[in-house]
Amino acid sequence: MAEASRTSEAHRDAVFARWVIFSPARSRRPTDLKSHGPANPSPGPDDGAPKPSCPFCLGRESECAPEIFRVPAPDESPSWRIRVIENLFPALRREAAPPAPEDEEPVGAGECAVRGFGFHDVVIETPHHEVRLWDLEAEGVRDVLLAYARRVQQLAEHPAVKYVQVFKNQGASAGASMAHSHSQMLGTPFVPPSVTSRLNCMKEVFERSGKCSLCAVVSKDILVSETHNFSAFVPFAASYPFEIWIVPRQHSSYFHETDQDKVLDLAGLLKSMLQKLCKQLNDSPFNYMIHSAPFGLSSSCLPYTHWFLQIVPQLSVIGGFEIGSGCHINPVFPEDAAKILREIDGS
Amino acid sequence: MAEASRTSEAHRDAVFARWVIFSPARSRRPTDLKSHGPANPSPGPDDGAPKPSCPFCLGRESECAPEIFRVPAPDESPSWRIRVIENLFPALRREAAPPAPEDEEPVGAGECAVRGFGFHDVVIETPHHEVRLWDLEAEGVRDVLLAYARRVQQLAEHPAVKYVQVFKNQGASAGASMAHSHSQMLGTPFVPPSVTSRLNCMKEVFERSGKCSLCAVVSKDILVSETHNFSAFVPFAASYPFEIWIVPRQHSSYFHETDQDKVLDLAGLLKSMLQKLCKQLNDSPFNYMIHSAPFGLSSSCLPYTHWFLQIVPQLSVIGGFEIGSGCHINPVFPEDAAKILREIDGS
Ligand SMILES: Nc1ncnc2c1ncn2[C@@H]1O[C@H](COP(=O)(O)OP(=O)(O)O[C@H]2O[C@H](CO)[C@@H](O)[C@H](O)[C@H]2O)[C@@H](O)[C@H]1O
Ligand SMILES: Nc1ncnc2c1ncn2[C@@H]1O[C@H](COP(=O)(O)OP(=O)(O)O[C@H]2O[C@H](CO)[C@@H](O)[C@H](O)[C@H]2O)[C@@H](O)[C@H]1O
Repeated sequence: MAEASRTSEAHRDAVFARWVIFSPARSRRPTDLKSHGPANPSPGPDDGAPKPSCPFCLGRESECAPEIFRVPAPDESPSWRIRVIENLFPALRREAAPPAPEDEEPVGAGECAVRGFGFHDVVIETPHHEVRLWDLEAEGVRDVLLAYARRVQQLAEHPAVKYVQVFKNQGASAGASMAHSHSQMLGTPFVPPSVTSRLNCMKEVFERSGKCSLCAVVSKDILVSETHNFSAFVPFAASYPFEIWIVPRQHSSYFHETDQDKVLDLAGLLKSMLQKLCKQLNDSPFNYMIHSAPFGLSSSCLPYTHWFLQIVPQLSVIGGFEIGSGCHINPVFPEDAAKILREIDGS
Repeated sequence: MAEASRTSEAHRDAVFARWVIFSPARSRRPTDLKSHGPANPSPGPDDGAPKPSCPFCLGRESECAPEIFRVPAPDESPSWRIRVIENLFPALRREAAPPAPEDEEPVGAGECAVRGFGFHDVVIETPHHEVRLWDLEAEGVRDVLLAYARRVQQLAEHPAVKYVQVFKNQGASAGASMAHSHSQMLGTPFVPPSVTSRLNCMKEVFERSGKCSLCAVVSKDILVSETHNFSAFVPFAASYPFEIWIVPRQHSSYFHETDQDKVLDLAGLLKSMLQKLCKQLNDSPFNYMIHSAPFGLSSSCLPYTHWFLQIVPQLSVIGGFEIGSGCHINPVFPEDAAKILREIDGS
């Protein structure tokens, strides 16, 4: 990791209003505890054979929960490239009765409980056990993103679904339980807490400045890469070392409404960022999340909601300070991370 | 883990306004990734000798950053029972110039950066490498809590310190880098994000109901134990399986203002809860955090700020859903966790 000459600074961003402490000195602290931090990198390409025990592999479709849709292969074999299926162990259940509109009480009413209605789906990104998302061609990554968008669109039509969180866990210390490349989405009957605070913060900025927090031109020193439609940069208040945000350059509230041709552009940039992270961080586990607007937002909110994709490498375990305060400690300044990432080959 | 007959539910609490999804079925999902979840338990009692490489051990004081104060041993040897020292690798630095009052801009002004001024201290809870906090007598735990309170009081007197986060990391997968029993505190020049959202939520509840969210009587089914002055319970919207909150039964905004005799009561309850968790969860890593009020709060805020101590066992790794949405998925309903914890011997 680059050693910055700056000492500590605290930054607060204009999207979540979260404070982050940047402290390069922290990376020098010693440890006498084994396996401090994730020791296990993401599984890389292996022997290439389908794993006899993996239900996400080609030919084992019958061991999965029901399929929602698939992206067929151009020829007949393998018979699919992407499958969107139900999660066999769903956190929220589509069979549960959806909450009535009056079930969600305002925060001021105190505690609130609703039935566990919702949708929990898995996107199998490839039929092959050993292929990672960024091993696919840009067109293959595009098709995964289009599968997300198509499924989000379906869920958006359900009146009781308020939000869909699209996310990917890659590697055990990023939470993944399955090695086969996949992502997930959860359609929730409530607006999740981070979405509420993001909207509140972006609203406050908009009301004061008349500007959307994410429409501003990205300063050169934190920029990693730019395409015609998207910017990839290390955010000013990155919570994680080498965190990257990919943001549409034109204002846009909903991920799933992105034009098909722009999705190819996004796919190329995402693939390149994942390749850079993989090279720089030695195959480190990571998560990515798509932050979009909740459904049914009034049109007055659209000017300050701007979707983006956040990639967070998992290089260390967070502790009580972060859990208690919501403030992360990051040993790498955004400019230093961006400089390193700019200089790595992303193809 | 207890298998509940209930399927999923989502709960939102009246303190942080955070949604949590309870889903017992999730605990049955398979994994083909090694070391999914923390595999390494907290180090237990070992040979009892000081570790030659541990700067927190008795006799190695010169390898530590400067001492702030110590709690002396009653006799002459060992010469101290508790030491509060500076962190040698501080996230925030006491030598940095404190930010001027006008430096912290309101959220609506967008991004904000301040110098890394602040205090980062370590509390060494025992001179002996192998002793864990809950191995101490209740009086020993009390003295650790009193050391926290004394140091928080000192930091509260600094005009530029807005909040002090007291926390403990126990075990590598709870983030600990040092095995020797210790806790930490960080005095920050800003009010951290979770503190702001906690205050906003408790204010909203208070304005609507006239009640403090934490003054309510705890329902029997989530109660784990109660003393004259404190209740220990599994919160209605526990983010982590077997999470416990210890809350003063009488309204009180600041942890560091707790009476000495009440601190002994708290110490006994804390020791008992840590013993229960250690037995039930097989020495699992955990964090605890003290949630108190920020300094210099106007008196109109005091009726709805109520301090508490939160203990969170670290049984699994969180994933992209939690990072993205701020909503946790917990496989154990609060009532089921509380029942199990009630039935375990906590001494
Ligand atoms: N045969 C089958 N058919 C259909 N689906 C199947 C299946 N076998 C397994 N699955 C599902 O596949 C999913 C694989 O997901 P991941 O590997 O991304 O992480 P997981 O959801 O287990 O937990 C991580 O992500 C969640 C959400 O962020 C965190 O709560 C958690 O702590 C973290 O470990 C699991 O949810 C599992 O239920
Ligand atoms: N000789 C010496 N004198 C004085 N101090 C010394 C010292 N040697 C080491 N230290 C300090 O002792 C502390 C030990 O703390 P912990 O084991 O609780 O976790 P740590 O702070 O490393 O990181 C965990 O907690 C923080 C805060 O939650 C997270 O940011 C992080 O990711 C997680 O791993 C370290 O902060 C270290 O700087």
